[in-house]
Amino acid sequence: MTIKLVGISKSSTTFTVIICLNELGLPYQLDTPVDFPADTKTEDYLANKHPFGKVPVLFDGDVKITESRAICRYLASKYQGQHNNTILIPNDVHKAGLVDQFISYQSFYYEPPVTQLLYQEPTFKQYHGKDSDPEVAKQAREEIVKVLDVYDRLLEGKEYLNGEYSLADLLHYPNTYYCYAFANHSDLWDKRPNVKKWWERLMNRDAWKKSLEDVKD
Amino acid sequence: MTIKLVGISKSSTTFTVIICLNELGLPYQLDTPVDFPADTKTEDYLANKHPFGKVPVLFDGDVKITESRAICRYLASKYQGQHNNTILIPNDVHKAGLVDQFISYQSFYYEPPVTQLLYQEPTFKQYHGKDSDPEVAKQAREEIVKVLDVYDRLLEGKEYLNGEYSLADLLHYPNTYYCYAFANHSDLWDKRPNVKKWWERLMNRDAWKKSLEDVKD
Ligand SMILES: N[C@@H](CCC(=O)N[C@@H](CS)C(=O)NCC(=O)O)C(=O)O
Ligand SMILES: N[C@@H](CCC(=O)N[C@@H](CS)C(=O)NCC(=O)O)C(=O)O
Repeated sequence: MTIKLVGISKSSTTFTVIICLNELGLPYQLDTPVDFPADTKTEDYLANKHPFGKVPVLFDGDVKITESRAICRYLASKYQGQHNNTILIPNDVHKAGLVDQFISYQSFYYEPPVTQLLYQEPTFKQYHGKDSDPEVAKQAREEIVKVLDVYDRLLEGKEYLNGEYSLADLLHYPNTYYCYAFANHSDLWDKRPNVKKWWERLMNRDAWKKSLEDVKD
Repeated sequence: MTIKLVGISKSSTTFTVIICLNELGLPYQLDTPVDFPADTKTEDYLANKHPFGKVPVLFDGDVKITESRAICRYLASKYQGQHNNTILIPNDVHKAGLVDQFISYQSFYYEPPVTQLLYQEPTFKQYHGKDSDPEVAKQAREEIVKVLDVYDRLLEGKEYLNGEYSLADLLHYPNTYYCYAFANHSDLWDKRPNVKKWWERLMNRDAWKKSLEDVKD
């Protein structure tokens, strides 16, 4: 039974799940709401897809899971090691705990200022509707500088955040990529040698290259 | 070897881990920074405890894990079922995926407006230093109303978010409790019958009662 992913390829959270599916070597079918976000606010969508009216939503046979991080965890727990050797969540309890720690850094320290910075870019205005505010952009950059300084130390002598590639690295893809591709902020990453090498390593992964093709119009 | 928890009992995230330890029946030693938050910004703290200068941090023998949600996952994976029958993360992949989904609802829809509302209360001003803003409080309440309406539907006919008690419910404790104990906002919860019954059920758990004693001065 083909895995069905409800989402739009331009959404960072849908993109995250697409990368996860490709890392695990899983074929999937993308089911895109025609009128986004209006179609995610219908009674039917709220009752049967996502109660908060969001994408992505995963359907895997009888199983429905919402929320990108939860979907990735589910896919890793169910399928990792079956189609290739990629392990996104280690079986070892201690290693898994550290992956969870890095996932939390991504969720609570890395993503908020990066998202805030992206929202100040004209490209993203159509998705959130707010006007750019240079003061907000400046504050977000300052916050990202602090976060990336920590990351540069954490990545010292390591290929990936937890040594081996994991779901923690994967979650950084979409928004970091947008900073490089659509915004003038990649200097923050490029200036920090360990962060730069980490990002280059991530850009070189086959699953990433396939995912980038998958989301192209 | 006793589990050591670095944190302060008045911090919601430390409190979360304390509840988790009690749910799993694990004895622990709380190691409180003398001068908080200054002591969490020293070179030693940033290098050896938490690189972003936060509490809580868990030490379990040779293992160190930061971030409340990661710590709880680690403790559940390592210790659940050993000292009592409480299961915080189900072994079944599908059930675990749904617990993760509810954890994500807590992280990204429930907690942000609840935290914002609490920050407008005089009791919490000392921890974040900002002045109260009635407009922010009003917006936060409006957002919480939307979230709790969804929760009330999700909890229909269920004892806990995922049917059985799990880490997803546990993560809601500290900030919801603060809304009841220190702020004038419990009406939002009490008005929604399924939410109200859920909260009463949570208040009745032995691990919660012990945790509340543990954090009393
Ligand atoms: N916490 C959710 C966030 C999902 C989310 O915010 N999705 C956006 C697109 S990136 C969305 O559906 N927005 C529509 C809306 O909020 O109306 C996740 O990780 O999946
Ligand atoms: N995402 C972290 C948040 C930790 C956090 O924000 N801790 C607060 C206390 S509740 C803290 O250490 N604040 C000190 C500071 O930010 O200077 C977690 O879940 O553990």
